[in-house]
Amino acid sequence: MRPRIDVHICETGPRDGLQNLDLFLPTEAKCALISQIAAAGVLEIDAGSFVPPKVVPQFADVSAVIAHSLTHKDIVTGAVVPNAKGAERAIAAGVQAIYFVISASKTHNLANVRRTVAEQIGGFKAVRAQIDALPVERRPHLMGAISTAFGCSLEGRVAESAVCALAEAYAASGADEIGLADTVGYGTPPQIKSVVKAVRAAVGAEMTLRLHLHDTLGLGLANAVAGLEVDIRRFDSAVSGLGGCPFAPGARGNIVTEDFVFMLEQMGLSTGIDLDRLMQTREILKAHIPAHLLTGHLYDAGIPKLLRTVA
Amino acid sequence: MRPRIDVHICETGPRDGLQNLDLFLPTEAKCALISQIAAAGVLEIDAGSFVPPKVVPQFADVSAVIAHSLTHKDIVTGAVVPNAKGAERAIAAGVQAIYFVISASKTHNLANVRRTVAEQIGGFKAVRAQIDALPVERRPHLMGAISTAFGCSLEGRVAESAVCALAEAYAASGADEIGLADTVGYGTPPQIKSVVKAVRAAVGAEMTLRLHLHDTLGLGLANAVAGLEVDIRRFDSAVSGLGGCPFAPGARGNIVTEDFVFMLEQMGLSTGIDLDRLMQTREILKAHIPAHLLTGHLYDAGIPKLLRTVA
Repeated sequence: MRPRIDVHICETGPRDGLQNLDLFLPTEAKCALISQIAAAGVLEIDAGSFVPPKVVPQFADVSAVIAHSLTHKDIVTGAVVPNAKGAERAIAAGVQAIYFVISASKTHNLANVRRTVAEQIGGFKAVRAQIDALPVERRPHLMGAISTAFGCSLEGRVAESAVCALAEAYAASGADEIGLADTVGYGTPPQIKSVVKAVRAAVGAEMTLRLHLHDTLGLGLANAVAGLEVDIRRFDSAVSGLGGCPFAPGARGNIVTEDFVFMLEQMGLSTGIDLDRLMQTREILKAHIPAHLLTGHLYDAGIPKLLRTVA
Repeated sequence: MRPRIDVHICETGPRDGLQNLDLFLPTEAKCALISQIAAAGVLEIDAGSFVPPKVVPQFADVSAVIAHSLTHKDIVTGAVVPNAKGAERAIAAGVQAIYFVISASKTHNLANVRRTVAEQIGGFKAVRAQIDALPVERRPHLMGAISTAFGCSLEGRVAESAVCALAEAYAASGADEIGLADTVGYGTPPQIKSVVKAVRAAVGAEMTLRLHLHDTLGLGLANAVAGLEVDIRRFDSAVSGLGGCPFAPGARGNIVTEDFVFMLEQMGLSTGIDLDRLMQTREILKAHIPAHLLTGHLYDAGIPKLLRTVA
């Protein structure tokens, strides 16, 4: 029996953590990483991206990786999909969740998927139609993700109205969930609360919302707490804080799953994740990835044992 | 004319940042650091500790450093004092603020100052009497600091009641301000709020409270935001996140002043600090202190220029 879950974590290390990496993580290492994540009791994994291999060579093996992830029955296997073609491949691979991506920043959207926001909404509708054409039991969960929802490295601040407009388009086009992504880590805690409330007002409180946070400026966990305070209960995070930006060599990546889980434990919130097993993912990563790209306060300071005995 | 100040920051790098350092920072470097901190517009500096030089050799030059700090007229020069003897020296040196230290954890207090908590309260009263014997215009501000208020590396969790009892003793003994210190960085945002509220209920809302936060487990800025949310407006922090613990080699120190100031700016809260000048303290530090002891997300990621143009 699953323990009580207060906060649902989707591990995005195998996708967002790897997509900007300058080296190819061998397929066996990706699979070992996913097995360890599943063994730790993580509920959902963002296991890869169905982009053209020419654009992101890291995901040339995505179908094999998804096939491996699907052998773990207790974890939901998801993947990023940028267009209808990608959705075809993702569905053929058997993914259980599709994360469709549109940026709230027009400039970022053009740079990221080479289409306008309006064209991308058309693409999302096409994916919804593809999914609806499947038998009910084979339909993946469809999340509409809003990139750069809290700021953009190309445009700076992003208007809340742009985020709400995109959320409304997703909701009207049949999204099962909407993801709000602080792609570059520019958000602040008050902003997280404000955007979440505005989006909820725009699409209705029944819509499930998810936060995807980066720690670029050190505000990742502060922003996660802000999300918790406005009743967000679904988050993306990455083991070892994978996911730095290639244009900012020292910049941190996603919020660190290990640190996030420990914080939640200390706050009395359950994730169902075995922290000690989760920490073992570091062994897999450090065999392939340079040490300066692997972060985490718990790794550096050690897990304070006196705090855990009472937890 | 001073700009509007929303959040008062006390730079504790020259004291808490150095006290566990394995090397002696030359007096000239300490003075250069303080001059740069003052030039950046910081309002208050914790410039050293009047402990016996045999116990902490780093502060053998504390009186000379204080004398230098006092030449900067726009900054309040403060120092830590563990006992009446230290207070005598601090007053002779002309400090404008005294930070007296007692731990909420009994074990930590014995290890830190070799006295029981009750004995330390007696010591605080003696310091209050020393100050009150001075002419009014020469009396330093007296803060009663509560170490390990949010957890202890020796005892683990620390009871809120112990923190409140100590705060009451300080208030009854004439403290001008009470400092709540997360000495080892074990606090969580809900805990920060809970302890602040409990202490306020115990000593009255008129008492000025200050937070001193460490980033050991990555929660430093999240805890600072929690403090802001319960109306704390005075914080300690350290440039380059100085202040790691000698027993946990990779552990982070105090919250990073640069990252904290940037976060506050982004939240629309003014500190009166010139961030660019503050960032220049790194040049002074890196000439003397090993790179792995100097941290900061802004240093690693770069200041996002697009965010600052609108601020």
